Amino acid sequence: MTNPTAAMIVIGDEILSGRTRDANMFNLAGKLSVHGINLLEVRVISDKSSEIIAAVNATRAKYDHVFTSGGIGPTHDDITADCIAAAFNVQIGIRDDAKNILATNYENGIEDLTPARLRMARIPDGAHLIENMISKAPGFSMENVHVMAGVPSVFNCMIDWLLPKLKKGAEMISSSIRVDLPESHIAEPLGVIANKFPDVSIGSYPFYEENKHGANIVIRSTKSALISAVESEVRAAFKLQ
Amino acid sequence: MTNPTAAMIVIGDEILSGRTRDANMFNLAGKLSVHGINLLEVRVISDKSSEIIAAVNATRAKYDHVFTSGGIGPTHDDITADCIAAAFNVQIGIRDDAKNILATNYENGIEDLTPARLRMARIPDGAHLIENMISKAPGFSMENVHVMAGVPSVFNCMIDWLLPKLKKGAEMISSSIRVDLPESHIAEPLGVIANKFPDVSIGSYPFYEENKHGANIVIRSTKSALISAVESEVRAAFKLQ
Repeated sequence: MTNPTAAMIVIGDEILSGRTRDANMFNLAGKLSVHGINLLEVRVISDKSSEIIAAVNATRAKYDHVFTSGGIGPTHDDITADCIAAAFNVQIGIRDDAKNILATNYENGIEDLTPARLRMARIPDGAHLIENMISKAPGFSMENVHVMAGVPSVFNCMIDWLLPKLKKGAEMISSSIRVDLPESHIAEPLGVIANKFPDVSIGSYPFYEENKHGANIVIRSTKSALISAVESEVRAAFKLQ
Repeated sequence: MTNPTAAMIVIGDEILSGRTRDANMFNLAGKLSVHGINLLEVRVISDKSSEIIAAVNATRAKYDHVFTSGGIGPTHDDITADCIAAAFNVQIGIRDDAKNILATNYENGIEDLTPARLRMARIPDGAHLIENMISKAPGFSMENVHVMAGVPSVFNCMIDWLLPKLKKGAEMISSSIRVDLPESHIAEPLGVIANKFPDVSIGSYPFYEENKHGANIVIRSTKSALISAVESEVRAAFKLQ
């Protein structure tokens, strides 16, 4: 069995401008890893419709799932829903189910839905709503594209609602071994081990601490027996306990 | 004058797997913003050569600069330099200048350059070296593609060396105004202001704090007079001091 694959599209001028450090990518990557969905690509793009449409179409054809964050609020720069409709060549309009959910957020219900608020009930035809337990305004899944808010607390609660509904793969297990040697001493023995285990992902991540060189060897696989086998070889190669 | 444009390619299985939270994107975005280079896209991809080559070729044709991070160390998973050579269809080999720089890092100089260490002196034909004051092993610029290490301290020092050599644009200035109203109250007046100033980037970033809704209105432009004009309109629209 191979795991489902995924890409993420972060729609965020505020990240490209350096104003905000993205949090959603790190959170999604961790959750997908546990769920057994392999995140293979992330794109951070500006909120320009041609860029959003092109990124959605490029990734939805290539991966089993595409997760987007950002651009589904009520303001002029919230254009993600329209771009998804354009990418899929479907109509978009205010949908009653989304409108009714949104209304529960306001004192006078439907009456309080100003035109700005109603923008958040505009859903591309054929999409399924994603629940938002924090501020009600729903996200949606259009085929394999899952559209979520950019505010990290809302993004996380939408992902937590959505993920159990997506087919699980085998959880990617990882193990990290710290080697206090410069990477150039590690490279050759590690290359030999990597060649011996082509199905295990073996990465070397160097660090510098107090002028000392070292690296974390990260071993990743869905099979714990393979991880143990590689761990033993790494420990033997570098004379670790 | 329009600012130069840029993309970043983060080569990093460790980020896609959720093990590590990327730091280089946030650092680069901030530095480029000050230098007047507009970062328009970031791609995080796995260390698979076909993906690296495709991402480099797609972005170098589209943007003035491409900055890459990761994959230039001595181990088996460090394949970035080879991928750059393949993307540009040039040869790659051990270069004397890179070898001599590398040798300064070791007690016995050139004699200490094992095959693994020599991997870090492999530079695509025609590239210019980027200095690494921390651990010597250089990065390089191949035309408009700037290839740097993934370790954040090394990445930052390479960027600090490189940026003064790249043509400056107008610094992007930004101003942030906090509005303690739900975004749905902000949307319409803000849309009117955004329409009035099409050359100013005006973003609205909602937050939820202690069950209260608000948003930060971020105004960005290279012209401080335009920012002041938008600030005045935003303050007037939301009756702020």
